[in-house]
Amino acid sequence: MTRKADRKPLHLNAFLMSVGHHEAAWRLPESPADGGTDIAHYQNLARIAERGRLDSLFLADSPVLQGDPGRRPVSKLEPTVLLTALAGVTTHIGLIATASTSYNEPYNLARRFASVDHVSGGRAGWNIVTTAGADAARNFGLDDTPLHRDRYLRAAEFVDVATKLWDSWADDAVLADKESGVHALADRVRKVHHQGEYFRVDGPLNVRRSPQGYPLLVQAGSSEDGKDFAARYAEAVFTAQQTLEEAIAFYQDVKQRTAAFGRDPEGIKILPGIVPVIGDTEADALALDAELDRLIRPEYAKRQLANRLRIPPDQLDLDRELPEDIPTEDEIEGAKSRYTLVVELARREKLTVRQLIGRLGGGRGHRTFAGTAEQVADTIEHWYDAGAADGFNIMPAVLPSGLELFVDRVVPILQERGLFRTEYTGRTLREHYGLPRPSNRLFDTVDASAGHLGIALADAR
Amino acid sequence: MTRKADRKPLHLNAFLMSVGHHEAAWRLPESPADGGTDIAHYQNLARIAERGRLDSLFLADSPVLQGDPGRRPVSKLEPTVLLTALAGVTTHIGLIATASTSYNEPYNLARRFASVDHVSGGRAGWNIVTTAGADAARNFGLDDTPLHRDRYLRAAEFVDVATKLWDSWADDAVLADKESGVHALADRVRKVHHQGEYFRVDGPLNVRRSPQGYPLLVQAGSSEDGKDFAARYAEAVFTAQQTLEEAIAFYQDVKQRTAAFGRDPEGIKILPGIVPVIGDTEADALALDAELDRLIRPEYAKRQLANRLRIPPDQLDLDRELPEDIPTEDEIEGAKSRYTLVVELARREKLTVRQLIGRLGGGRGHRTFAGTAEQVADTIEHWYDAGAADGFNIMPAVLPSGLELFVDRVVPILQERGLFRTEYTGRTLREHYGLPRPSNRLFDTVDASAGHLGIALADAR
Repeated sequence: MTRKADRKPLHLNAFLMSVGHHEAAWRLPESPADGGTDIAHYQNLARIAERGRLDSLFLADSPVLQGDPGRRPVSKLEPTVLLTALAGVTTHIGLIATASTSYNEPYNLARRFASVDHVSGGRAGWNIVTTAGADAARNFGLDDTPLHRDRYLRAAEFVDVATKLWDSWADDAVLADKESGVHALADRVRKVHHQGEYFRVDGPLNVRRSPQGYPLLVQAGSSEDGKDFAARYAEAVFTAQQTLEEAIAFYQDVKQRTAAFGRDPEGIKILPGIVPVIGDTEADALALDAELDRLIRPEYAKRQLANRLRIPPDQLDLDRELPEDIPTEDEIEGAKSRYTLVVELARREKLTVRQLIGRLGGGRGHRTFAGTAEQVADTIEHWYDAGAADGFNIMPAVLPSGLELFVDRVVPILQERGLFRTEYTGRTLREHYGLPRPSNRLFDTVDASAGHLGIALADAR
Repeated sequence: MTRKADRKPLHLNAFLMSVGHHEAAWRLPESPADGGTDIAHYQNLARIAERGRLDSLFLADSPVLQGDPGRRPVSKLEPTVLLTALAGVTTHIGLIATASTSYNEPYNLARRFASVDHVSGGRAGWNIVTTAGADAARNFGLDDTPLHRDRYLRAAEFVDVATKLWDSWADDAVLADKESGVHALADRVRKVHHQGEYFRVDGPLNVRRSPQGYPLLVQAGSSEDGKDFAARYAEAVFTAQQTLEEAIAFYQDVKQRTAAFGRDPEGIKILPGIVPVIGDTEADALALDAELDRLIRPEYAKRQLANRLRIPPDQLDLDRELPEDIPTEDEIEGAKSRYTLVVELARREKLTVRQLIGRLGGGRGHRTFAGTAEQVADTIEHWYDAGAADGFNIMPAVLPSGLELFVDRVVPILQERGLFRTEYTGRTLREHYGLPRPSNRLFDTVDASAGHLGIALADAR
């Protein structure tokens, strides 16, 4: 499955996170003191990404204070609010935000994403997450995370309800005939009357159908449930892959699962994460990478790693490998695939705890790559041609400088090689990714054999 | 309680609603076809209001499709998203949005308002509503509206949780010491460990304390529970008052209740609604008013009125007064005070159903006033001097033209009379209203006898 013969441009997403994906990025002299809450900082990032003609930008999220406030900037702006603020200073780039299906109500979330899609002229995307972690659960009246399987069942029903609500207005519902006084056509706005296991929602939505119909649906979990969820509902997948072989296997697996749900495998775009650390020379890049790792405070990082592994911190020795006796993926609830990835990374590369902390500090399980712009472009091209990706989720270690370097040095190389657009050709997020606008399953008659309409068909069960 | 001797400038809020508060405004040739979802229309309104140096703008909301889509524009943007988009095109005006305590989780809503306050540089306000109506309930898994009293108990606890979350970061929590690697001071960020009747929330919030500490707290219900809620928590009150006598009585009642909760009555600003219909001459204004009423489709309006009165539509005759046999306020759940106001208005002025429909079509129970700019300024001054108001909630019948007329013709008269600011002197919403930034009740030691710290004291139970 190589791509040399049939080379289409690839897709690039900028994953924006405070002052960078490396947890010590804030300690560099160049970094703003508290970038997570700094709207001017984020607006600058959005403008840089759009200057590079990137498909989209992306914001992660969980409804909980994540990480140790003593150790790094953890205060941040709520993503649908932040997306809206970024929409105001950009004109083309797609705007994707994470939101939880476990801790939101479908009516509320459907309204917000429909509103962002209207305000941005069709640039909204929703990264659907089920939210692992007892800390988040305890902000919503629960004692612990709901079970993995329950979270995914609720997520599936949530997406079902949300898409029905987005489809509760036909695209042609609004007539606005001033003469007769008829505003919308009565039979083109419908209640949805959803009655399910987790939700009862009457509808209709109080927002008319938006430019894209509804936001691009994105998914980022890589567990078995996560991959099936992606194959069924998602139009784009962000994934953490450490090796080319694993990335190819994941890519093929998700595309096959997508086809098995009766969907066109081209209708789902797979974007592995890459944490580029770019220097004028390879030595410069490696020096920056080392400097960032040096700035991690190991005593905090060790505690965080022990927490992730569900073992007491004193079982970890900074200068030895992970102990043998740690839980298996089956024994933990939540973030299962990321857990396994971390343990396998440590075992495969025989990393000491200190080395593992450095790798996780940079990309939290995503692949870090330190080198020149040419080398970063080479590795992107190599993975793309090998059939490991439809594009990449760019996670600069330091922001804004890492994004500027990527946009100003790596993107031109990809453009020269015919691998990336030089101008936007579409206006909506789905147009950037070459995906069709979804049909309306409450009002449009669709041919169920067509197989390229995303949710409308995937959900016709 | 007249104000002639001690005349301070009054406060003005622009209540933005689609293409105007009159339900037939959309049928005028000048109106955009679907203003409720049109971000450019709203951004234009926000700029006009700021040009007039108004204190704030306000967006109503309910998580349900309100009104008949066949009859008027009902699609609209979610308010926290819309506020954020309006923050981007303005620099000073306050930004107030309604959000429901019955159909949100405190953690989620606290994050969004804190984020809007950050993004806008301290201009956010939250109009706290409990949301009446079975239609809304049926979007959230319920069969009917929760009982009035339950809704208010939940609302009180909701505000308690939200303010704790907003206070979970001390103002000086973030140190951002790059040298030592300490970002926030560990003892200046705290869990809130709330355990109540309706909510269990651990915290802390994942957004640091915002420029205003937290959004201005606004309230708009006028039932007994509503007035007590306002007296206890609110810093501004929007209210519908038809006569000067009733407005004075309401004003004094709320100020006294506020004092009874140990708060400074100056710490709560009362703004009755006024629906100005402005013309070059009084005859012009009255003609526009009549034209708008003529554009209401009476068969739809009769059905809506019957629904509000909980009687079958065939019991209403367009050319007769309301029937004697309709429910009392005690017999209904939700929107109690507005119900009584409508019935009393009809009885007092001996309105036919058709006339009542015209009055409600214009202001939904708020006071409509058709006249010249001078006459509108006179009535504002008269009510203000009589001690009926600290300011006014301006609800133009037609938008943007009604707001433009108010800003360009009425505001200069009020400025000439020394009744309204000619320039902004503050930057935050609370500064515009002359209200103090709230102290932090988790971190600040406050003198409970000071009596001007809003929630911090009101809630010290």
